[in-house]
Amino acid sequence: MAGVNVKALVFDTYGTVVDWRTSMLAALEAFGAARRLSVDWAQFLADWKSSYRPGMDKVNVGEWPWTTVETIYRRGLDQALGRHGIRDLGEEERARLNLAWWRLAPWPDSVAGLTRLRARYIISPLSNASFTGMVHLAKFARLPWDCIITAENAGFYKPRPEVYQTAVRLLGLAPADIMMVAAHNYDLHAAQQQGLRTAFVPRPTEHGPGQTTDLAPEGKWDVVVSDLGDLASALSA
Amino acid sequence: MAGVNVKALVFDTYGTVVDWRTSMLAALEAFGAARRLSVDWAQFLADWKSSYRPGMDKVNVGEWPWTTVETIYRRGLDQALGRHGIRDLGEEERARLNLAWWRLAPWPDSVAGLTRLRARYIISPLSNASFTGMVHLAKFARLPWDCIITAENAGFYKPRPEVYQTAVRLLGLAPADIMMVAAHNYDLHAAQQQGLRTAFVPRPTEHGPGQTTDLAPEGKWDVVVSDLGDLASALSA
Repeated sequence: MAGVNVKALVFDTYGTVVDWRTSMLAALEAFGAARRLSVDWAQFLADWKSSYRPGMDKVNVGEWPWTTVETIYRRGLDQALGRHGIRDLGEEERARLNLAWWRLAPWPDSVAGLTRLRARYIISPLSNASFTGMVHLAKFARLPWDCIITAENAGFYKPRPEVYQTAVRLLGLAPADIMMVAAHNYDLHAAQQQGLRTAFVPRPTEHGPGQTTDLAPEGKWDVVVSDLGDLASALSA
Repeated sequence: MAGVNVKALVFDTYGTVVDWRTSMLAALEAFGAARRLSVDWAQFLADWKSSYRPGMDKVNVGEWPWTTVETIYRRGLDQALGRHGIRDLGEEERARLNLAWWRLAPWPDSVAGLTRLRARYIISPLSNASFTGMVHLAKFARLPWDCIITAENAGFYKPRPEVYQTAVRLLGLAPADIMMVAAHNYDLHAAQQQGLRTAFVPRPTEHGPGQTTDLAPEGKWDVVVSDLGDLASALSA
């Protein structure tokens, strides 16, 4: 990668490092089997997940005060349960189901790739997760981060510039010393606008078999790789 | 430890987890030997270190804007060099010497104790270090933190309440679910006032052979232990 010489890498996490859909679908199917519910869980999950971006956007435009992803998903869960006719679920069970977002399996290449990258670079998530959510996820998935930085440290969600600026400030580096790694073009676009380097790692089944988005690079990214092991090789780690 | 049931432990780091004095003295002696300087390095280090608290206090009372420990120490280094008659040192060499604060050895029990504690609890520094300084120190000393939280996340220094409150907020826990671990009574006192649990780990040689402070608990701390392995045993980790 001629001309790419960074000191730290920051990673989108949901989708880029962990396979949220497979894990969440398994959690929902286990929940449904235990309660003998007949529900299209893939559709349920798509409905639930669809509450994510609108909630973050409300924070970003100032309509809501800072609201964690857990709270956004907790509200979205109530809506999804109602839409799919599940009404007899107590508060405690809803809270427990919501915490499945903290127990997501990494993609098969993630831990080995991050471990290689960590030997040469500072590595951190730069996720829209809550700080504590990212701590719990890292513990569960054994992600070997050097530190945790999330949207909560900025008080805004990606793609707001404050999120990338917060990572730059906390890491004490120049923007060009930091590479944003993501499976989502919108995230790389926003990072690039703040002066960060960019690595695109497509995850073509993040949203399931019929995924139509983020299958190919849609910008001039510094690095395009097939997975995090490939990224480690590309960056000589 | 009857009645102590926490989910996360936050650690003072300089003095409590790492033996800054031995490492800094070795760095200064190596620097002096390379330049054939005849200086009382123990006194030099005491002078240098004495710039730390006044700088932080200036931030805490609003006299200075947020200023990292690196900047405070960088100014203190100039003063210590002048006081000890060392004037022919370039900017680059001063900056390099200052970064010795990122390369401090842990106490012999620290890494093993933290590793045991991490298996059962969330563990994080809660240090007056800069965020990046704590990241670099953790990498150097192989401290197995789950995340990094420092005074920089709060914009104030310990013992300002905002620092402990920031840890509580980021970890998403009740104050009583978090235990502050420190070799310094002032730190535990401030943490306790914010509702955190407290563990005192005396480090009787932190300041050298003639240390007179923090040799014994000066408050009603929840736990008093001899080292971090002892802490892990006390907390069934």
